[in-house]
Amino acid sequence: MSQIALQEYMPHKTCFGCGSENAQGLQLKSFWNGEEGLCAYDPKPYMVAAPGVINGGIIGTLIDCHSISTAMAHLYQVEGRQFGSAPGIWCVTASMHVEYRRPTPADKSIELRARVTGAENGRVTVACVLSSDGKERAHGTVVAVRVKNLGTEAPRV
Amino acid sequence: MSQIALQEYMPHKTCFGCGSENAQGLQLKSFWNGEEGLCAYDPKPYMVAAPGVINGGIIGTLIDCHSISTAMAHLYQVEGRQFGSAPGIWCVTASMHVEYRRPTPADKSIELRARVTGAENGRVTVACVLSSDGKERAHGTVVAVRVKNLGTEAPRV
Repeated sequence: MSQIALQEYMPHKTCFGCGSENAQGLQLKSFWNGEEGLCAYDPKPYMVAAPGVINGGIIGTLIDCHSISTAMAHLYQVEGRQFGSAPGIWCVTASMHVEYRRPTPADKSIELRARVTGAENGRVTVACVLSSDGKERAHGTVVAVRVKNLGTEAPRV
Repeated sequence: MSQIALQEYMPHKTCFGCGSENAQGLQLKSFWNGEEGLCAYDPKPYMVAAPGVINGGIIGTLIDCHSISTAMAHLYQVEGRQFGSAPGIWCVTASMHVEYRRPTPADKSIELRARVTGAENGRVTVACVLSSDGKERAHGTVVAVRVKNLGTEAPRV
């Protein structure tokens, strides 16, 4: 498994969820082991809902960004290419569904595991489990859609 | 319609999405007109995904927090009580589904309208539309579950 996060191969490092140059963002780092996208994240104190519990929107952001990176890693692998090689493969989120199983404690590291469960017609479905302190806290399903570029009016491929 | 945001009646003002005392949060302000929850929000420059487009996790955070406030406003109204009156009514997110229809521009105000579409057994379903620049950008469905308190291991009511 590469020691370089998938996000480091992306041309835009602005993303609130995973951009390494977004000082006010989460700076999520995802890794691909050939089968799954993996991520460890230490939440910041301001990411709570009620005190001690992580906000649902932060959980959605983690699941969204990590799942999109996982979808892109899958697509590069299917084409037998190194992640980030030209021409770039880009995905954006078509839909996200999150089930919040139990509160996510604010003082524990978070782990994310994401796996592609379906891919057709430029749409990749990713299932993502978010855990901390040994328990599943939430799981999500993200449908990523492949696009030609990441511009504001990015046409679907 | 009250000129005081629903969030101002909540005892915890820590929430990343809507806590007025969370300087690094979104500080969302929701209003209830008796039928719908309404919110206007000006995104910050760091809330982008690719440049010029709002991140999907931020969109999820807006839909999540605004829908939960809307669910609570509905429950107070059903009981004929003023929002925030004791004993407090609390909801947390059981699930969230977001469909991203088109990119949300980073330089335009965002509007949210949320409406309760179902309520039974302590679960309130809220449909929320997110628009900007005259177009729907995303819509979400949030299932809120009523809880006794907002602690880490809050028991369901």
